[in-house]
Amino acid sequence: MAEADHSAARNLANGKTRIDFQTEPSRYRHWNLNVDGDIATLTMDVDEKGALFEGYELKLNSYDLGVDIELADAIERLRFEHPQVRAVVLRSGKPRVFSAGANIRMLAGATHAHKVNFCKFTNETRNGIEDFAENSRVATICAINGTAAGGGYELALAADHIMLVDDGSAAVSLPELPLLAVLPGTGGLTRVSDKRKVRRDHADVFCTTEEGVKGKRAVEWRLVDEVVPGSKFDETIAARARELGAKANHSALAQGIKLTPLTRTITADAIEYSSLSVEFNRVARLATIMVRGPEGPPPASADAMQALGAAFWPLRVGRELDDAILNIRLNELDVAAIVFKSSGDPAAVLAYDKLLDASKDHWLARQIRNLWKRVLKRVDLTSRSLVTLIEPGSCFAGTLAELAFASDRSYMLIGTREGDNRLPATIALSDANFGAYPMSNGPTRLGSRFLANPADVDAAKAERGTMLDAGRADKLGLITFALDDIDWDDEVRVFLEERASFSPDGLTGMEANLRFAGPETMESKIFARLTAWQNWIFQRPNAIGEEGALKRYGTGQKPVFDTKRV
Amino acid sequence: MAEADHSAARNLANGKTRIDFQTEPSRYRHWNLNVDGDIATLTMDVDEKGALFEGYELKLNSYDLGVDIELADAIERLRFEHPQVRAVVLRSGKPRVFSAGANIRMLAGATHAHKVNFCKFTNETRNGIEDFAENSRVATICAINGTAAGGGYELALAADHIMLVDDGSAAVSLPELPLLAVLPGTGGLTRVSDKRKVRRDHADVFCTTEEGVKGKRAVEWRLVDEVVPGSKFDETIAARARELGAKANHSALAQGIKLTPLTRTITADAIEYSSLSVEFNRVARLATIMVRGPEGPPPASADAMQALGAAFWPLRVGRELDDAILNIRLNELDVAAIVFKSSGDPAAVLAYDKLLDASKDHWLARQIRNLWKRVLKRVDLTSRSLVTLIEPGSCFAGTLAELAFASDRSYMLIGTREGDNRLPATIALSDANFGAYPMSNGPTRLGSRFLANPADVDAAKAERGTMLDAGRADKLGLITFALDDIDWDDEVRVFLEERASFSPDGLTGMEANLRFAGPETMESKIFARLTAWQNWIFQRPNAIGEEGALKRYGTGQKPVFDTKRV
Repeated sequence: MAEADHSAARNLANGKTRIDFQTEPSRYRHWNLNVDGDIATLTMDVDEKGALFEGYELKLNSYDLGVDIELADAIERLRFEHPQVRAVVLRSGKPRVFSAGANIRMLAGATHAHKVNFCKFTNETRNGIEDFAENSRVATICAINGTAAGGGYELALAADHIMLVDDGSAAVSLPELPLLAVLPGTGGLTRVSDKRKVRRDHADVFCTTEEGVKGKRAVEWRLVDEVVPGSKFDETIAARARELGAKANHSALAQGIKLTPLTRTITADAIEYSSLSVEFNRVARLATIMVRGPEGPPPASADAMQALGAAFWPLRVGRELDDAILNIRLNELDVAAIVFKSSGDPAAVLAYDKLLDASKDHWLARQIRNLWKRVLKRVDLTSRSLVTLIEPGSCFAGTLAELAFASDRSYMLIGTREGDNRLPATIALSDANFGAYPMSNGPTRLGSRFLANPADVDAAKAERGTMLDAGRADKLGLITFALDDIDWDDEVRVFLEERASFSPDGLTGMEANLRFAGPETMESKIFARLTAWQNWIFQRPNAIGEEGALKRYGTGQKPVFDTKRV
Repeated sequence: MAEADHSAARNLANGKTRIDFQTEPSRYRHWNLNVDGDIATLTMDVDEKGALFEGYELKLNSYDLGVDIELADAIERLRFEHPQVRAVVLRSGKPRVFSAGANIRMLAGATHAHKVNFCKFTNETRNGIEDFAENSRVATICAINGTAAGGGYELALAADHIMLVDDGSAAVSLPELPLLAVLPGTGGLTRVSDKRKVRRDHADVFCTTEEGVKGKRAVEWRLVDEVVPGSKFDETIAARARELGAKANHSALAQGIKLTPLTRTITADAIEYSSLSVEFNRVARLATIMVRGPEGPPPASADAMQALGAAFWPLRVGRELDDAILNIRLNELDVAAIVFKSSGDPAAVLAYDKLLDASKDHWLARQIRNLWKRVLKRVDLTSRSLVTLIEPGSCFAGTLAELAFASDRSYMLIGTREGDNRLPATIALSDANFGAYPMSNGPTRLGSRFLANPADVDAAKAERGTMLDAGRADKLGLITFALDDIDWDDEVRVFLEERASFSPDGLTGMEANLRFAGPETMESKIFARLTAWQNWIFQRPNAIGEEGALKRYGTGQKPVFDTKRV
């Protein structure tokens, strides 16, 4: 077993130079998405030869980021293309194995940054499955037909109902600790304790038992919801899908829209989308995301919105922003800060927010709001410094203003610039800023911002729809600094240079703490407690050293541990 | 600047071979504790030459673990020896400097394990100061007369009221990130965001500004409660102490008790206390803590309890357990698991619990319960596997049963052993198990254990006072495994061997997740989100590598960072 050096990035398979998050069902190599009436079945059947990187094979339905990108895409398509679906069945296309979890050779050979980002993305995908159940009332049933180990069981944990075949050998397990000296890092520990509410000592036994737990004990310990004889497995799956699907409140008549491929042109230092552009300044280590507001007024009705489909501006720009953020996270590791800018008419952005609010009961409006909620959460969880620059011609209003509130800092120009005849910059709030986009730990971004004084949220709310200039925005506490033209260039330049000069790790830790004040949820616990511990362990010689468990796995040699407890 | 290798432990100063947590005011080298009527003043005046380890000096009121051990002792003495105190003033004995924070040379040369445990202890001390305010209503006023940097400001953050002298230069700062590439790891980030509720973008600016914030802005940004002219500093401190002290509900007549030195004999492989013994099996990497129950019935009244003072069994054994746990944490890094055993009469333990409950309004009973609450939290946060063995002759009842509930697993023997004429083991519950000892994240240990079904808590509550044998305890879900004599030795041996064979880091991460199901509090966020991130950063080359910021600090050379954001 020869593994690449941990510090060196592995090569992507097939000569690729970047990880692409765009795909579609006809291109899937690892999943099959089948929709039959109001029940969808997602079958995992991983192509061993379809690994994202060179140097390992995806045996036994083990997965890497490439497999999860297809899963995330499939869930997205269910949301938008198949709104009639009431229940999703997750199952395996391989006999006697559900999934062996994250591929160990992949993990052993991956860079630290890739491991961390891989876990973050897979966590977001599983949170998305739960969000689907919570907000679209589409239940997921996981049908485990054999081994569900590690990440395989963690995927099952995202489902609402877990069925395990009772064949004397099928088992669920989290063998990461005994086998690899790492944690089940894709939410496993947190979902076992907080979602399944497994008693802590049972969880301790379970997570240290390599072979896992099966049969009756798996039910008694709350690890699965039921065990089902093999002879009745298929009929029980169908029955559960019907039962759980009955709780959905969908209209059987809802017609989906097609998620057409993104319009995207990638060049050396830029990516151009239909309503977004990303520019990389590699010397300054900056990515500037310019969001362009809508080109015209919103359609007149929800039906007209549906007719526009994926071309409808809020959906289009949301999907593009998601792709842009993921690209920076996984392919542009050297970017220290993301600078958000915008151009367009803030009143037009507010008009789109208004349409979405007025269409709250329309399935598509709900899904678009949900998409934005998830994209904004992705922004919050992105380990780069985030800054919003609010200048004349910008349109940080309503939904787009959330980018400023998600940023570590925002700078707003007072008045105009010499030689620029545009009006002074304004920002504006809409109803969307007061509930549509909760952070992963619960509160809205404004609620979190004004934790000290909730009356400040009310004061901001009272200004919905008003175009707020820099002075007013500053007074309301909506921006960090209001600067005039004389100070702007120097202040912003010094800040961005300073940010690029700080320790990248220190910034990651600081931002991960300061961005999430106040309450915690299971979701935010996964990204805080669990992820941070996993990141720590991913750095420790007991896992990744020459004699560590990840390195030695499969060699026949036992790992050698530093026995000091820390 | 020559620093010890990070992997090698530094030598303790003065030829010492272990860190001792026992001290008393007459032996303090760094603090002065002065009690004047109902106001106590704790003056930090660190002896530069009094470092715990060789190789650095404690300049500018910087501190190491030795300084914090004295602070923790002083708070403990205020609780027990000076119950008439209504307010505590924290101040500096040095001109124009409050505290420079944790000593950087100490951090740069410390082992990873020591850094982590140092932060954990200092966090517990600061939480103890806040617990003092919350549960004993003794407010702490921090009077900052100059620079309060890093850990210096973090100490101030534990106070209820922060005063900053307004002399044009005195400032508060958290310069860890820009200066050292690490986090303010002693609660700083969390207290800024969650306790002081500083707006997140202000916090971002504050934590990246080396020189900190002073004067009016420090108040506007909620970093301090008031700035006070130097000429009025002392009188304002006195006024604030009086005002805040007026909220305490103490009886001026309460007489303290003397916290006499612990009875303690330390030998190579054991520590013998008055009611506790610790035995080290260095081959198996185990520490067995045997808690001995009370020798006789409790005193007849609260007054009689007070007359016993530090000899009163619950107080005595609580202090001894605290010392034993701290000793294992800091001096016995190779211990993989702590095995809790007990011997004595469970009915007697319940009788002591009853006295404490009946004396709820007595200051001493409250302080003893609070001490146990903090010691049990310390157990929860100890990075060793915890197991309780419940055998004939044991007395895991009421308060002592919390040790079983704090453990990762418990094993209980069914029936008797051949040749042992003692009765079968029983455990028993008291009111104390249902509210007196919340975990750091809020719920009781039983509440956390039965998160899935709160009715199980009620079922257990209904059995208060009953002696529960293994079968009954198992049925109630109070123990992990009930085993008979035939299986006991093998099962327990295999478990303990297995535990010692796993990766120490993996276990630390797993236990830190599984022990804290459900809600979070500011306190638990400090130990989860903040601490885990800090531990990660403490491993990263950007901080501790040869070119990292901690290594290069003070050399005149700038650190060189790996610019990849993770």
